[in-house]
Amino acid sequence: MTEPRWLDPRERRMWRAYLRMQRAIEVALVHQLGTTGISRPDFEVLVPLSEADNRSMRVRDLASWLGWDRSRISHQLRRMEERGLITREDCVEDARGTVVRLTDKGYEVTVVAAPGQVATVRRVLVDLLEPDEVDQLTAIAERVAAAAGYANLPYSDD
Amino acid sequence: MTEPRWLDPRERRMWRAYLRMQRAIEVALVHQLGTTGISRPDFEVLVPLSEADNRSMRVRDLASWLGWDRSRISHQLRRMEERGLITREDCVEDARGTVVRLTDKGYEVTVVAAPGQVATVRRVLVDLLEPDEVDQLTAIAERVAAAAGYANLPYSDD
Repeated sequence: MTEPRWLDPRERRMWRAYLRMQRAIEVALVHQLGTTGISRPDFEVLVPLSEADNRSMRVRDLASWLGWDRSRISHQLRRMEERGLITREDCVEDARGTVVRLTDKGYEVTVVAAPGQVATVRRVLVDLLEPDEVDQLTAIAERVAAAAGYANLPYSDD
Repeated sequence: MTEPRWLDPRERRMWRAYLRMQRAIEVALVHQLGTTGISRPDFEVLVPLSEADNRSMRVRDLASWLGWDRSRISHQLRRMEERGLITREDCVEDARGTVVRLTDKGYEVTVVAAPGQVATVRRVLVDLLEPDEVDQLTAIAERVAAAAGYANLPYSDD
């Protein structure tokens, strides 16, 4: 086995800063949800469903969008179904799997929780960046996600 | 309550890309550790200790470095102590809390696991970036971490 290429000082500095940024953002988002009764994984499922046509998506598309594996998405959806936030049903258009749909209760929960989450995303990240930095981070993040084999977004509203 | 300032299309695109980048990196790092018998939280504790003077740090400095709260760091250190990876002892220099020290076993585990983790960090992030992007991401991440009140790094080797 050859000696690994260790990170050089500039790369180490970046990696450490990245880890701390990532923790700061995650901690802030989790903390903000503390009063709403829903978790970050709940919210991450609720948002794309609330924005999708008919408030529904194929489970496989949702999993791809989130970057979750089959086991994680199944577990999360089962718990959300038990709480009445989503339903799961066979896809009527083709035989390719299950469709997950937001319930009215799920939509209401999303609408109540979203302003606080967005305000937190602004406070801890977006509003700290210059416009060119928004583009820089987008370029970096899209390349990293694509390299990891993340599928294209199943929908777009931009 | 005023209407929240929702993210504009450029900001949404960035936020979604960031979330997917973050998941891609985390999934890759966890997956790579699958064969080593240690977890990502284990590794995150082991690395700064392995690089610190005397392979030891104050618990509060380690927690600050990691961005973990008191409960999380205590729980993690207790489990690592039970496995013989670290020890905890009263600080001899002053009365300000406990010192955590890497054991020889803990150091060996770190040395075995580090090459695979570094190779993964390179593959999924560092080697995908241009040199100016390394500086861009560093600037962004350091500002975000600082704004969240993260303390300065307790040591530096750059």
